[in-house]
This record gives sequence, C-alpha cells and structure tokens, in this order.
Amino acid sequence: MRISELSARTGVPVATIKYYLRERLLPEGVRSAPTQATYDERHVERLRVVRALIESGVSVAETRRVLDALDDPPASPHDLLGAAHAAVLPAAEADLDVSAAERLVEGLGWHAGMCDDQVLAGVARALQGLDRAGFEVPDAVMSVYLDAIGRLARAEIAGVPTESPEAAVRYVVLGSVLVEPLLLALRRVAEQIASAERFGGADAEGA
Amino acid sequence: MRISELSARTGVPVATIKYYLRERLLPEGVRSAPTQATYDERHVERLRVVRALIESGVSVAETRRVLDALDDPPASPHDLLGAAHAAVLPAAEADLDVSAAERLVEGLGWHAGMCDDQVLAGVARALQGLDRAGFEVPDAVMSVYLDAIGRLARAEIAGVPTESPEAAVRYVVLGSVLVEPLLLALRRVAEQIASAERFGGADAEGA
Repeated sequence: MRISELSARTGVPVATIKYYLRERLLPEGVRSAPTQATYDERHVERLRVVRALIESGVSVAETRRVLDALDDPPASPHDLLGAAHAAVLPAAEADLDVSAAERLVEGLGWHAGMCDDQVLAGVARALQGLDRAGFEVPDAVMSVYLDAIGRLARAEIAGVPTESPEAAVRYVVLGSVLVEPLLLALRRVAEQIASAERFGGADAEGA
Repeated sequence: MRISELSARTGVPVATIKYYLRERLLPEGVRSAPTQATYDERHVERLRVVRALIESGVSVAETRRVLDALDDPPASPHDLLGAAHAAVLPAAEADLDVSAAERLVEGLGWHAGMCDDQVLAGVARALQGLDRAGFEVPDAVMSVYLDAIGRLARAEIAGVPTESPEAAVRYVVLGSVLVEPLLLALRRVAEQIASAERFGGADAEGA
C-alpha cells in the first residue's frame, strides 16, 4: 500500500509517518519509484505500536529501544521484562542511596539481586521526590500499596502467554509500558469513588 | 534569607529558583534593595513542593494549577481531590467515546455521576491507547487490576487527615500526584520479582 493508505488504515497523519520513518521508528517501505514506496501489514502493526507508545508519553529514543527489544528479544521472558524496563528507565545513578528503597521493597518479597539496579533506582528516586516535598505516605497506606501492587504484578506475570515467543514479547514489552496510563487513570476514578463515599460528593448530596 | 541561602537550603540552583520566580511558581521575596530580595520558610517549603512536582514530570502550567489548589482550596476534601486531578489532566474531549471506560469502572463500584468527566476520559484514552496498539489485557488480569486499585484508593482516602484543612490539602493534592511515580516504580520491582519466581531470573540460576 502507499503511504496515504497506511495513514488511512492507522489514523496517523502522513507527515507523522514520515517523521517516524526519519527517526527509524518505522522500517522503510519497498521503493517502487524514485519518490514512492510501498508498505505492508507489518508497517500497519508497527505504526500502531509506535503511536501507542508515543501517546503514552514514551520518548522517541525510549520507543526505539522498546522496538529493539520487540525485534531482537532476549531468550527468557525474565530478561525480556528487564529489557522492556531498561528501555524506558534512566540509568541508575552511581551515588543514589537505595537503602530506603531496599527496605521498602522487602515488603514485596524482594531480596538482594532480585531485580535490576535501574528498577530499584526508580523506587529510590520516587521516595526521594516524596521526601523532598515533605510528603509522607502513612504506614497503613504504604502496606496496602505493597500488598495491592504485589497482587497486581503476580497476576500480570501469571498471564504471560507461553504458546509463542512473539506473543510473550508483545505481552511483556507492551504490557509493562502501555498499561501504566490505565492503572493511573483507574486509580483516579477509584479515589473519586472512595472520596465520594467518605466525604459525600455530588452524589451523596442528592444531585 | 538571600536567594543563595534559599538555594543552599533546598539544593535547587539559583538559576532554577529565578526561573520559578519568573514563572510565578514561587512568590516574590520581600525586596530589601533594588537588586536583592529576602525569602522565608514559606519559600523553602513551596520550593520543595515545586521541585518535587516538576521532577515527577508535572508541567509548569500543571504545577501552577496544583499550587492554586493548595493556596485556595475548595471547602470539601472531595472537591479538593477533583481540583488536584483537574490540575494535571487534559480536558475531556467532547467526542471521546467513554462507554468502554464506563463499563470497566463499574468494576470499581462506579455509577453515573460518581467521578469527574476528565477522570473518566483518562480511562477512555488509556483503553484507546491499548486498543490502537492491539494490546489486550486478559480478563483475569483486569479483574485483579480493579480489585487492587480499589483497595489502594480506599486506603488512601481513609488516610486523609481531617485534623486541619492544611493537612488535608497537602495530603490530597500532593498524594494524588506525587505518589504516581512510586506506584509505577513499585510495580516494576514487583513484576521483576514475580517474573524471577515464574521464569527463573539470575537468582534462580544460582548466580
């Protein structure tokens, strides 16, 4: 198909497709004339993934690394998950103090060596951000966080399909990244429901 | 104190403080000479909050709206939560189809009118992103998401302090925004732990 049809099929404007091609997020089409190329179903699928990642706030450079993990997956699903996380996370700073993060994730069943440094650094940075703002999560709330997040992650990993490597790759790489906006959005809805129940929202006022 | 001491106290570079002042994220100091101003403890605290929000990926415009909600809070904690969410979310598009989002959040106990349009639009957009990427969350995983997120939000709202309006404001506004990076970071750690347990990571190989 021509680039115009690729655009119509995916809803991505032609100018954006050209940008993705220049940024090597999308493989070149087969050149059919000096100024024309043809694209196939793999371009449609790849374009959908690229758009979803970019719209989720993943940067161009991170998207390229996620695509690399999709195209050249490590042998085990465990390493694959590490590659997906590595693609979207900054490197761990050598001087970052991770001791508070380590104590916290022990509540998830963590012990030394169980996850990548980059991932642990993410927890340390998040705790630092809260600390700098002078915000403390009450202990009772934190222990519900750990319990809820542990359940959620175990269900996700139990759901990794093993019938084909391609299916596992898609699930792990896209699931770890693309599901984030959904979880945050669901949390906001659940907070408003719980708050309406506790403090009485529009609903409780009989509106 | 001078701007240099404000910088030393908070670890925020002087140039960044000047930028925040220009962007009205930080109130002016009291002018003590034509080219000098003095700052007090409220500047220290405000600067910590601003830096934490900006470092969490909240934009300058969104940060300004979060600060407005802190400075001029609505009367009820429920409306306050709505203001905090509104500050960091785009407006709901008039033509966005929220029917799938509505069906999904019924699993959280939602019924019509229980949350703001903007918040529901966030769920709809996240579902659209997954859909466009051709990614489906398995039903069994989605129901664990709903259960886990519901628990987490109820604990958060139960933890809203009611002894002072200031404490409630800080908790609701900062908690809803600043905790997001922590939850996502904990999820990545929990995923790696669950994956090491299921697929055998470095640990299971006896490394």
